[in-house]
Formats: sequence, C-alpha cells, structure tokens
Amino acid sequence: MKKEQLIAQIRDRESFLCIGLDTDPTQIPAIVGKGPEAMLAFNKAIIEATLDLCVSYKINTAFYEAMGSEGWKVMEETVNLIPSSHFRIADAKRGDIGNTTRQYARAFFEKMDFDAVTLHPYMGKDSIEPFLSYSDKWAIILALTSNPSADDFETMELTQQKGKLYEQVIQKSATWGNSGNTMFVTGATRAEELQSIRKQIPDHFLLVPGVGAQGGSLEDVWKYGSNREAGLLVNISRAILYAGRDADFAEQARLAAQNYQSAMKSLLSYQG
Amino acid sequence: MKKEQLIAQIRDRESFLCIGLDTDPTQIPAIVGKGPEAMLAFNKAIIEATLDLCVSYKINTAFYEAMGSEGWKVMEETVNLIPSSHFRIADAKRGDIGNTTRQYARAFFEKMDFDAVTLHPYMGKDSIEPFLSYSDKWAIILALTSNPSADDFETMELTQQKGKLYEQVIQKSATWGNSGNTMFVTGATRAEELQSIRKQIPDHFLLVPGVGAQGGSLEDVWKYGSNREAGLLVNISRAILYAGRDADFAEQARLAAQNYQSAMKSLLSYQG
Repeated sequence: MKKEQLIAQIRDRESFLCIGLDTDPTQIPAIVGKGPEAMLAFNKAIIEATLDLCVSYKINTAFYEAMGSEGWKVMEETVNLIPSSHFRIADAKRGDIGNTTRQYARAFFEKMDFDAVTLHPYMGKDSIEPFLSYSDKWAIILALTSNPSADDFETMELTQQKGKLYEQVIQKSATWGNSGNTMFVTGATRAEELQSIRKQIPDHFLLVPGVGAQGGSLEDVWKYGSNREAGLLVNISRAILYAGRDADFAEQARLAAQNYQSAMKSLLSYQG
Repeated sequence: MKKEQLIAQIRDRESFLCIGLDTDPTQIPAIVGKGPEAMLAFNKAIIEATLDLCVSYKINTAFYEAMGSEGWKVMEETVNLIPSSHFRIADAKRGDIGNTTRQYARAFFEKMDFDAVTLHPYMGKDSIEPFLSYSDKWAIILALTSNPSADDFETMELTQQKGKLYEQVIQKSATWGNSGNTMFVTGATRAEELQSIRKQIPDHFLLVPGVGAQGGSLEDVWKYGSNREAGLLVNISRAILYAGRDADFAEQARLAAQNYQSAMKSLLSYQG
C-alpha cells in the first residue's frame, strides 16, 4: 500500500484504528471451538465485524507460531481474509542480517502478502534495508516501546549529544528509507515523548500500541503524536478481540471497535 | 540441556562446532530435489554425516519461514532429527514483551524441543525473562554481531562511563539469568573485542558466528574468547552445508566439518 492510499483510507473511514489479531486459542469464546480451525473462524468473525471501522489489521506472529505449522497456516489464511483496502501488518519483530533478512522479507512480502513488518533496529542498517527494496511495502522499526523495561536500553543517553538510544535509532534509520516506506513503533504509555519524536520526524507514520489494556490515552497520543495527515495507526488488541466471550463476541468486538472509531472520528474532525 | 552436559559433549567430541542449518532451497544440490521435502532430506543427510563432529545444530528460522507453513513443518521435523545429545538452537532472533514473549517461548520450547533461542535485547528485561523460566533451556542474547552495521547502534558510547551499548547489554542481561541459562552472540569478525567481553563474563558461553564465509579467524576466537570450559560454540553454516554440490554433498560436508573439528581439537588440547 502506498502512503497516499493509507491516508485516503483514514479519511474515508474516519479512523486510524489498527486491530491487533493477537489471537490466543485459550481466550477464544468456547462457542467457536478449539485449535487452529477455531483461531481462523474467530479471526474471520472479528475481521468481518470490524472492516468498516479500522484501516489496518496487525497479526502478532507469536500467537500463530505457538500453534506450530498449523498455526502458521492459520496466519497465511488470515492474511488472505484481509482485503487490500486495509494495511496488513506482520507484528513479527524480526531482525537479522543480509542473506537471512532477505529470507524474512520473502516470508512476509512474497509468500504472504503483508504490507509491513515490525523490525528490531539493534543490528543496524543491514537488518532493515532488504525490507525497503520492495515497492509499496513498509518497515516498521521499534523505537520507543510501551513496556516498563524499555528503560533498560532504549532510553539510555548516548555521548556527544546524540540523545537517547531510541532517538538515535529514529534519526539514523529515517535516512535509510523515507516516510513512504518506514514507520516507527512508539508506545502510547510514553505520550510525553511522542511530542519530541513528532518534531524529529514530522512526516512519518507512527504505529502506537499501548492504548487500552496497557493504559495509554488515545487523546494524549493524538495531542502529541498526530500530524496533518493523522500520521498515526493506533493498535488495539485484547480490548476489542475479547470484548465479549459469548455467542455475540463479534458484535461485542464491533461495539468496542466502534467506541474507538468514534473517538478517533472526533479527533480527526479537529483537523477540519 | 544443562551446562555440564554441554561441556561434557565438547570434551567427548573434542569439538565446539555448531552447524548452522541455513538451508536454502535454491542452494540444495539438484540431486536432492526441490521444495520442502528436499529441504528435509538435505538436512537429514547433513545431520547424519556430521553428528560425531559437532555439539550443536542451529536452525535459522528465516529460511523455513520463507517456505511458508510447509517450511515451518520442515523446521519441526528437522528439530526431531537432532538427537538430544546435541544442543539445538533456534536462531530466531525474536524479541517482544510479556504475553507475546510467552507465546514465542511456547513455540520454541514446548511446541518444538529446542534447547535455546536467539533473542534481541532492545526491549529490555521483559523480552528475555519468560525464556529464562524454563529449566534446562537457554536465552542466547545478541550482544556484538558480526555484520558491518553493528556499528550503527551496538558500539555507540553511553554516558556516565557505561561503556558501549553492547557492553551494557551484556552487563545488565547477565544479571537476569546466569551462565547456566544465558549465552551471548558475539561475532568472530570482532575478535579483539572478544577479549574484553570474556573479562566481563568469564563463565558464560558465547555463540560465535562469522568464522568461514564472513572471514573471522577460529584461532583468534579461541585466543580471545575461550575460557577453561571452552565457553564457545562456533557456528559454521554455508562453508559446511554447501561444501559440495554433487551427489557426494554429504561426504563433502563431513570433510569440511572434519577440518573445523580437527582445528578445534588442537585448540582444546592446549588446555590439557
């Protein structure tokens, strides 16, 4: 997907909601069944119930890998259920070098038709570049994450006025691609820091986890992190997926998604 | 596998060789065939030809993911081909938080019977800890990697005399577990820096890529990186896997592995 298309989807659906398909077989309503087939049926129901309310789905690869090769197959089938009008993210947090990275890019961009993959920056440019060589595909680089131990390394101060590690990650890696093929993960639990990140990269999209279950505020994320084009994909997983546990789980998921979409619509309307 | 068992295997086989199963379907000898079945047949032949020469096999997950769910199945079947006398590493370079990390741990330690997984440190303790809660399983944390762009972030200097980023990664993460469940990846192309790493963590095993195709020297790795118990797993992938391209490829792989094992035997014998 091209950046202009993503922006158009946000405008049309009045939403910058990304729904995280962290589908945990132990959390699926009993009525859907068990095992890989139930995972797929659950995903299908969630996607169908929420398509008009969001612009993106994010598949958390760990939940599929935990089910083995059958789980990986469910992931492949789930990507195919998401129409190309929606930005399809593999939340895979990969990161390796040269030859190996090219294999990961093949896995997510060729074998499966994802628009984007989340990536670790630790190993530097070698680990990101192969993903940037595809047209209309995106690298989403971890910058400042929403977990408490983000402070172990991400916020460490570097010498020679280079700022914090995550700032240096953004500064360097923003030059490897451009705002049409690179996004950054910045947690909603760090809303104050979003303001300086937005100054650093005015044009890039930010993928923001941490609203909902982790306690980040949507209003703060908008206030500090948005730009003229919205520039945000706010991810919600559990608060939508598991809004209901009974036969009406898809309807409950839709209601939860609707609440977020309606809040996003208000925020977007301030832009005029 | 427990640390004492690994040390005993190194002593018995006079080898600290890890063979990297970076099995690329486009590189497999034509005689083996094509597709997922050929990958598995190739792995089986390589494992059978080298079992007595190495102490570990490292499966590079990217090459299997690039073949989709069928590739993931080949990975599952390959792990089962490796006897428990050998240390089975998933070179998966994962790294996520809380709930998600627990799913990755399930994928590699429960659904498949790997002894160890390689991990990105960027997100801090939250992303490593769930792997350390399994007995006789290991986290292998990326410290100083063998690629040129390791200098983008890994070697950046931190303020307050905290040293370089990778040194801080080692210092902090060594305290999360112990030398019986944590190893570090340190590239052979950085042999001089191995000396200071070895001082920092005298008892931990190091997983060392970069000898062979990437040009690192086995002798330097031994000189600067070994400890009383050897303390090293040196990984070789392409130089063994693709030593021959004809019908005798497994025999050629064995000869290549034998050269490394014989060099390692000499180095180990200096210890007396």
